[in-house]
Amino acid sequence: MRFQPQLRLVNTKQTVAMPPHQTPDASASKQAVDLIIFAAHVVPVVPRDVVLSDHAVVVNNARIVALLPRAEAQRRYVGAEERHLPAHILAPGLVNLHTHAAMTLLRGLSDDKPLCDWLAQDMWPTEAAFVSPAFVQTGTTHAVAEMLRGGTTCCNDMYFFPDQVCAVLEATGFRGVVGQIVLEFPGPYGSGPDAYLAKAAPNLAKYAPGCHDLITATMAPHAPYTVSDESLQRADALARTHQARVHMHLHETASECDDSEALNRQSMSCHQSDQKLRPLANLKRLGLLSERLICAHMTQLTDAEMEAVAEAGAHVAHCPSSNLKLASGIAPVTAMLARGVNVGLGTDGAASNNSLDMFGEMKLAAILAKAQTLTSSSVPAAQALQMATLNGARALGLEKDIGSIEVGKRADVIAVECDSLEMLPMYNAISHLVYVAGREHVSDVWVNGKHLLANRQLTTIDEAQVKASVRKWAAEIRAHREQQKAQQ
Amino acid sequence: MRFQPQLRLVNTKQTVAMPPHQTPDASASKQAVDLIIFAAHVVPVVPRDVVLSDHAVVVNNARIVALLPRAEAQRRYVGAEERHLPAHILAPGLVNLHTHAAMTLLRGLSDDKPLCDWLAQDMWPTEAAFVSPAFVQTGTTHAVAEMLRGGTTCCNDMYFFPDQVCAVLEATGFRGVVGQIVLEFPGPYGSGPDAYLAKAAPNLAKYAPGCHDLITATMAPHAPYTVSDESLQRADALARTHQARVHMHLHETASECDDSEALNRQSMSCHQSDQKLRPLANLKRLGLLSERLICAHMTQLTDAEMEAVAEAGAHVAHCPSSNLKLASGIAPVTAMLARGVNVGLGTDGAASNNSLDMFGEMKLAAILAKAQTLTSSSVPAAQALQMATLNGARALGLEKDIGSIEVGKRADVIAVECDSLEMLPMYNAISHLVYVAGREHVSDVWVNGKHLLANRQLTTIDEAQVKASVRKWAAEIRAHREQQKAQQ
Repeated sequence: MRFQPQLRLVNTKQTVAMPPHQTPDASASKQAVDLIIFAAHVVPVVPRDVVLSDHAVVVNNARIVALLPRAEAQRRYVGAEERHLPAHILAPGLVNLHTHAAMTLLRGLSDDKPLCDWLAQDMWPTEAAFVSPAFVQTGTTHAVAEMLRGGTTCCNDMYFFPDQVCAVLEATGFRGVVGQIVLEFPGPYGSGPDAYLAKAAPNLAKYAPGCHDLITATMAPHAPYTVSDESLQRADALARTHQARVHMHLHETASECDDSEALNRQSMSCHQSDQKLRPLANLKRLGLLSERLICAHMTQLTDAEMEAVAEAGAHVAHCPSSNLKLASGIAPVTAMLARGVNVGLGTDGAASNNSLDMFGEMKLAAILAKAQTLTSSSVPAAQALQMATLNGARALGLEKDIGSIEVGKRADVIAVECDSLEMLPMYNAISHLVYVAGREHVSDVWVNGKHLLANRQLTTIDEAQVKASVRKWAAEIRAHREQQKAQQ
Repeated sequence: MRFQPQLRLVNTKQTVAMPPHQTPDASASKQAVDLIIFAAHVVPVVPRDVVLSDHAVVVNNARIVALLPRAEAQRRYVGAEERHLPAHILAPGLVNLHTHAAMTLLRGLSDDKPLCDWLAQDMWPTEAAFVSPAFVQTGTTHAVAEMLRGGTTCCNDMYFFPDQVCAVLEATGFRGVVGQIVLEFPGPYGSGPDAYLAKAAPNLAKYAPGCHDLITATMAPHAPYTVSDESLQRADALARTHQARVHMHLHETASECDDSEALNRQSMSCHQSDQKLRPLANLKRLGLLSERLICAHMTQLTDAEMEAVAEAGAHVAHCPSSNLKLASGIAPVTAMLARGVNVGLGTDGAASNNSLDMFGEMKLAAILAKAQTLTSSSVPAAQALQMATLNGARALGLEKDIGSIEVGKRADVIAVECDSLEMLPMYNAISHLVYVAGREHVSDVWVNGKHLLANRQLTTIDEAQVKASVRKWAAEIRAHREQQKAQQ
C-alpha cells in the first residue's frame, strides 16, 4: 500500500505506455465506454455465492467489458452514460425457461381445474376463436412488458405465429428464444405437421445460433400427446440441421405418463411407438433425448428416468407455480440437480400461473425443494438464483452470452432496489434476491446494454397503448365466453 | 319504475318522516357519514364467491353501515370523505394469523437451515443479545408498516415485550391480537413461567374481548417443547378467566411430534405427561384442546388428530411459506377443511419467510393444496381468500367485527388496483386477488375506517424514521454476528 503514491507519480509520466488502470488521475487516458453501472452490491452468479460491494459493471458495444470496484472503474473508464445505484443489487437478467407469452391475454380466464379440462374446455376453444397474428402481437408485447418490469431479460417461448413473437422482440429489444410450434392437429397457425414444419424451416435458418443479437429459434413440438412419433422425428431432424434446441412439454402429469397410450390414440392414430413406453423412453427411442432437448415440467420421473436425462445432457424447465396450480405434481429438482441435470426455471403461460413472475418462481423453487426433501438446505438461495439465470442460459445454449455478470458476456443486467421497507434490513443480498425481493423491487433492466426499464419506466414499449389493446382483446374474449355460456 | 317521479315528489314533502333512500334528489335528506368508498369491484367474502360491480362501502363511526350500488349510495349518503377507486377491487383487510412481528429486524439473517439449528444457532442467540423494548418497538413498527403496505389489517402476534407491541398498535392504528408469551426458560422478557404469567395477567384483563377498539390479548405459550405441562395448564386457566384465546406453535415438525419426549427432557424436567403422547394428545389431556386454541403450523397430523381438532373446534394457522422454507412439511389443509376445521393463514415471522406478505401466502396456500391432493379444485380462489380473511377472524374470535365486508362490521377494508400491466386483463376479481395480485398492488387500507395507507403512503407511520431505525439495529446485529464469528 505504501508504494501507491510513488506508483501514481510514475504513472502520470507514462500515461500512454501504461495500461489505463495505472493512470488514476489522467482523465484523457480513461477508456471511453457506452455505459457504467455503479451499484452497492453486485451478484455476478459466477462465481457462485459471491456478493461484491460497491462495484461497477462496465459495458461497451452491448457487452460487459469489466466488473471491478467503484474506484477502479472511475479511474479506468468514462461512460457515455453512467448510472449510480447506491441502494441496489445488480444481478444477471432472469431467464424464463418456459413461456407461452401471448397467453397473458388469457390470464385468469379459468382456474381451479385439472390440466386436461383446463386445456379442452377453456384454453383450446378460446385460442381457436381468437389466436391470430394480432392477438400474438398484443399478448407478446404485454408479456414482454410484464417480464421486463419483473427483471426477466430472456424467455424461451412456445406459441403460435412465432413470426409475430420475433417482431415483438425486435421492436422491444427483449431477448427471446422462439419456438416453432408443431402439433399433429390443425389450428389457427397451421393445418397439420407438414404446414407447421414448413413454416419452421425459414425461422430456424434465420435465427440459428449466433445469427441475431436477440433472437434464437427452437423447434417446439408441443408435447408427446399432441405430436406423433413421425412428426417428432421430422421436427428433430430439422432442428439438428440448424443446431437448434428442441423445446417441448414432457412428463407434466402422471396421466400423461401412465395413460400415454390412450391419450395418443385419442389425439391421433398415426404413430407406431411401443405403446408401453413412457413419453421420455419413447423420445429416447426416437433419438430426441439429447443435450439439445429442453423438457418443460418433468414432474413425473423415476430414478432411472432422471439418470437418462442426466446422461443425455438434456435440460429441464422447472415450472413450480404452474405445476402446483394445475395439480400436476412437484418436479424432483433436488434429485435431478444431484445427478447433474441442468434445471432452469419457468413461469409457463400467464393462463396457468397466473403471472410471469420469476422472483416468485425462484422463491417457490427454493422453498418447495426443502419441503419435498424434508431438508432445509436443499436448493439454497444461490442455487435458486443460478437456476433462474445461468442454468436457463445453459439450457438455451446461450451460456457464453448471458446468465451471469462476467466480462465478455452480453450486458443483460437487472437492478433490484434493497432499501424499501419490505427489503430492510438486508444481511445477505443473495438471500434477499430469492427470499425477499418481489418483482416490484426491480428498478432497471438492460438487455444488450440497452436500458429497457429505467426507474420502472419501459423505454421501448408504450405502456398505455399496450394496456388499451389488452383491454380491447379481453372485452372481446369476455363477450365471446358469455355468448358461449348463454348458448349452452 | 314509472311511479318514481310521483314518489319523489311526495318524499320531498316528507323528508323527515321518510327513510332517506326514498328521497333521491334531496341532498339535505342524505345521511351524513364519515366515509364512502366507491369501487369498480367489491369482494365482500360473505357471501362467498361474489363480486359486486360498481358498489360503495359506506362507513360511519368506524363501522360499515351500508354496502350498495354506487347510484344508490350517492342517493342515500353523503360522506365527509369520499374516495373513488375506479380501477380497484375492495376486499376485507387480510388477517395474518401467525406472526412474530418484531422479527422483521432479523429478516434474512439465516436461511437454508433446519428449524432446530436455525433457532438454536441464529435466532435465539441473536434474540438473547438484542431483544429489548426498543427492539420490539422498532421491529413491530416496521412489521406494521410492511403489513399495511401489503393489505394486512390485523395480525395475531407472539413475541417478547407485548406491552411495546400494544403501544405500536395504538400509535399506528393497526389491529392486533397480542400474545402474552410464556416459556419455561428465562429470556430477556422474563425469568421463567411465574414471571411470564405474572406479566400476562394485566394485559389479558385490559385487552379482554370487547375492551379495546384495536387490541385483543391472547395467552401465548410458545410450544409444547418449550413450555411444561404445568405452565401450559396455568396459562390456559389464566386465558379462560379472561375469555382469551391460546396461541401456540403445534405439530410444526415431525421431530417435534416423534421426539417430543426427548425434546421435553432436554428443555426442562418438570412435567409429568405421559411420554408417549404426541403434543396434540398431550394438550387434549391437559384440557387445552378447545375452541379457544389457535394452533400454528400443524404440518404433522394423523386423521384421528384432524378429527380431534375438528371436534374441539380449535383453529389452525397455516403458514405455508415458513413450513416449506424450514422443511417442516405441508399442513393437510384440504383434509382439515373437509372435516370442518377452521384454517386461517399466517406468514410466521419475517426471519423464516422472509416476508410478511399475505398475498404470497394466499396464492401458495391455494396452489400447494392442489399439488398435495393432486386435485386442482382443492382450495379454490374463494376458499383461499376466505382463509386469509374470515377464517382468520373466526380463529381470533373477531368474526363479528372483521373478516368480511358486511354491514355492522368494523371498516377494515383494502383496495387493490387492477389496471396495471401485471393485473390486466381481469376476468374474475377473486381469482386475481389470489393468483395474480402482489402486495404491491394494494393502494389503500382502512382500519376501523381510518385511512392508514393512502395511495401507498403510510399515514400514521414515519417511513423514513422507521427505516433509519431499522438500519441502525441491523448494523449492530451485523457487527455482533461478525464479532461472534471472529471469536469462534
